[in-house]
Amino acid sequence: MDKVIAHIDANKERYQKELFELLRIPSISADPDRAGDIRKAAEWTRDKLTAMGCEARLEETGGHPVVYGEWLKAEGKPTVLFYGHYDVQPPDPLDLWETPPFEPTVRGDNVFARGSADDKGQFLANVLGIEAFMQADGGPPCNVKFIIEGEEEVTSHNLEKWVGAHTDLLKCDHIVISDSAQFARGYPAICYGLRGICYMEVFLKGPAMDLHSGEFGGAVTNPCNALARIIAQLHDPETGKITIPGIYDDVVELTKEEREEFAKLPFDEPGYKKHLGVDALPGEQGFSVLERVWTRPTCDVNGITGGYTGKGAKTVIASEASAKISMRLVPNQDPDKIQQAFEDYIRTLCPPGVTVRFENHGKAKPALVPTDSPALSIARNALEKGFGNKTVLMRGGGSIPVVETFQDKLGVGSLLVGYGLPDDNLHSPNEKFSLEDYHRGIKTAAYLVDELAKAS
Amino acid sequence: MDKVIAHIDANKERYQKELFELLRIPSISADPDRAGDIRKAAEWTRDKLTAMGCEARLEETGGHPVVYGEWLKAEGKPTVLFYGHYDVQPPDPLDLWETPPFEPTVRGDNVFARGSADDKGQFLANVLGIEAFMQADGGPPCNVKFIIEGEEEVTSHNLEKWVGAHTDLLKCDHIVISDSAQFARGYPAICYGLRGICYMEVFLKGPAMDLHSGEFGGAVTNPCNALARIIAQLHDPETGKITIPGIYDDVVELTKEEREEFAKLPFDEPGYKKHLGVDALPGEQGFSVLERVWTRPTCDVNGITGGYTGKGAKTVIASEASAKISMRLVPNQDPDKIQQAFEDYIRTLCPPGVTVRFENHGKAKPALVPTDSPALSIARNALEKGFGNKTVLMRGGGSIPVVETFQDKLGVGSLLVGYGLPDDNLHSPNEKFSLEDYHRGIKTAAYLVDELAKAS
Repeated sequence: MDKVIAHIDANKERYQKELFELLRIPSISADPDRAGDIRKAAEWTRDKLTAMGCEARLEETGGHPVVYGEWLKAEGKPTVLFYGHYDVQPPDPLDLWETPPFEPTVRGDNVFARGSADDKGQFLANVLGIEAFMQADGGPPCNVKFIIEGEEEVTSHNLEKWVGAHTDLLKCDHIVISDSAQFARGYPAICYGLRGICYMEVFLKGPAMDLHSGEFGGAVTNPCNALARIIAQLHDPETGKITIPGIYDDVVELTKEEREEFAKLPFDEPGYKKHLGVDALPGEQGFSVLERVWTRPTCDVNGITGGYTGKGAKTVIASEASAKISMRLVPNQDPDKIQQAFEDYIRTLCPPGVTVRFENHGKAKPALVPTDSPALSIARNALEKGFGNKTVLMRGGGSIPVVETFQDKLGVGSLLVGYGLPDDNLHSPNEKFSLEDYHRGIKTAAYLVDELAKAS
Repeated sequence: MDKVIAHIDANKERYQKELFELLRIPSISADPDRAGDIRKAAEWTRDKLTAMGCEARLEETGGHPVVYGEWLKAEGKPTVLFYGHYDVQPPDPLDLWETPPFEPTVRGDNVFARGSADDKGQFLANVLGIEAFMQADGGPPCNVKFIIEGEEEVTSHNLEKWVGAHTDLLKCDHIVISDSAQFARGYPAICYGLRGICYMEVFLKGPAMDLHSGEFGGAVTNPCNALARIIAQLHDPETGKITIPGIYDDVVELTKEEREEFAKLPFDEPGYKKHLGVDALPGEQGFSVLERVWTRPTCDVNGITGGYTGKGAKTVIASEASAKISMRLVPNQDPDKIQQAFEDYIRTLCPPGVTVRFENHGKAKPALVPTDSPALSIARNALEKGFGNKTVLMRGGGSIPVVETFQDKLGVGSLLVGYGLPDDNLHSPNEKFSLEDYHRGIKTAAYLVDELAKAS
């Protein structure tokens, strides 16, 4: 291992150069006009894998291609599958970026660019950790496979099918995903739980046309007011609990040990509030902020619109109002069951004079990895070596749908080894990634395959 | 009068031609790009008044000009001031118009065009009623003044000042406004009461930036959810009453006689529901639909927006959400007092984790004209003769701020003599005006000045 680590240290500058090359490609999966850039990023990734010695190719999926690569010359050794994504979120609003999103710029220890942390910098760290073995030691001590997809930011809708159709190709012993974050600077973390999601849109239809609010105000049910009342009734104002009947039925409650572990984490509540610019963090009673974000379901409006939203005044009663409402789900909630409970409950809340219809915009199951598995311990150790700090166990509030897909189709749980930081501005302007953590991530990937091979 | 009426009947075709000329000018006051068309409509109106024998001119106001015209040769006779407006609402959404909004098109008895009923057809009827006297009888039996303004659809914000600065010029005995409607086809009506308005916008600010709803959902107060809860608390769900403390304190309750009169009106509730496309008309308990629309305050959301409102899903917690909320006010409510009560109440509803700010987008006082005045009886008679049907007394749910301005600055109440119909689609696509009612309106204007002269 020493020569591998020395090789990594000797190539620091080249690693940055390669990351910047990839960050310059605006591979925005949500934007149809960027299809060319998406393919460019896929080809860049394939060529990188090929150049370092993998067999690599683009796999067409009906959407953006999956980059698949493999190196299977470690006979009798376990196979580690690394997952990542080369697509990025749209950079809007552009005027809030201090430097252009696709011109990687170093300030302090960080590179600022869209996709730097999510997920180009993180998946590339894993690729380069394997490359170091190839260049310094003739090859890694494990077999490795890579799936780097191009639709993660648009809910990976073609990946599940592709994985299902390629279960033999993807056979593996371990899955490593680096698309999450450390708990805080100096606290590298393994994420062992993720929330799922059920994302709904509710449309309330009242009068057949927009009405003059003077001529008709008082006569009709106003869809905007009615929608507000429905949303208000989704939570109990006293306890902060969601009121959808049955929503907590399947929730796995936290163990005493988990609560104690979470309480030990150095969560900086004043700093967190300051970062968010809020003076209070209210929420479900009886749970800490971390417990709420990691282990409790939510019911958040993600968007609402109705009536006149331009400048000044228009005296109108809207014909229709709508809200996008997503529920984050926790182990052991089932998105289909929750969707049904949500729709049933809202139908009971819908007042006379309006009608309701629904659309679903996506569902993902929550994920929970056993914290006592040998692989998890190995990943903890590797991360500790790579980062030089004790690893903590945490959960995440977001969803990585592919975790559930892998569990379901391949029968393998994922190790979520995150190299980012919680303030990396994912999906926001001025996304960043620590270049030191990038380097530590490369080392972590090397230690990880080394230890997994040793344990086999 | 016989020759005047005969003259009106003989000129029916020309009247339509002139109306269509005016309707073709897209004088949209809200649209800065239409300033040229606004002026064109003002000049057309001025030229019409000049051509028929008035002294007429444009009066600059700082906004769109007021057309002022006068004919003061009926010495010793009363002066009647006619008010109207040559500006129109924007025609959007254009795709819902069956024929283009500024190409007047006749279907059945109606002309379809933006501004046909609101207010070009109605004010022109009054102008042409006076013209008929000039052409058939040497001049009207009263002195007449015209104020045709260009900012009614943008809350007449320059008119109040202009009226205040020209009280001598505008001195008069009666004011006639034709900018309302009959109660129903065959039920010509005098409107003796109007609601006022207080139009607010509420902005709720939560976190400093939009947040990922996975990473932060459960930790922060979501401004969209919080806004919905605030709006929900503006009404009592059981009684439909507004919950703003003190809001009903100054409301003049309906008399037993008024309620009886309203109940006698042939309000077609099934037809009304069918026209609006709703199956129920819920509202404040203890009041009929007409009572609610004409005599009870409202608190309606006119527009709401927050978070992601594009297609599909974005997992975001918005930094800010806002709602336009207007309260229709009834005699004797004071808009300033109501604004204060609204802001005070909402501040008490604002939960921790968000802050609130307000903007006011307009205020108008309610208006109520005594139903036992001699002028009102005369207007009833004139309308009965013009329309050949018994006149009913009604109120209106909308606001005509100028009524209060005239009362305040000139000390004269207004006669609201409406020629339109309640289903004329004002402010909506496919605005229309009955050409028969246009003709009857011209006759009504002639009868009105005749009777007002006789009574003096």
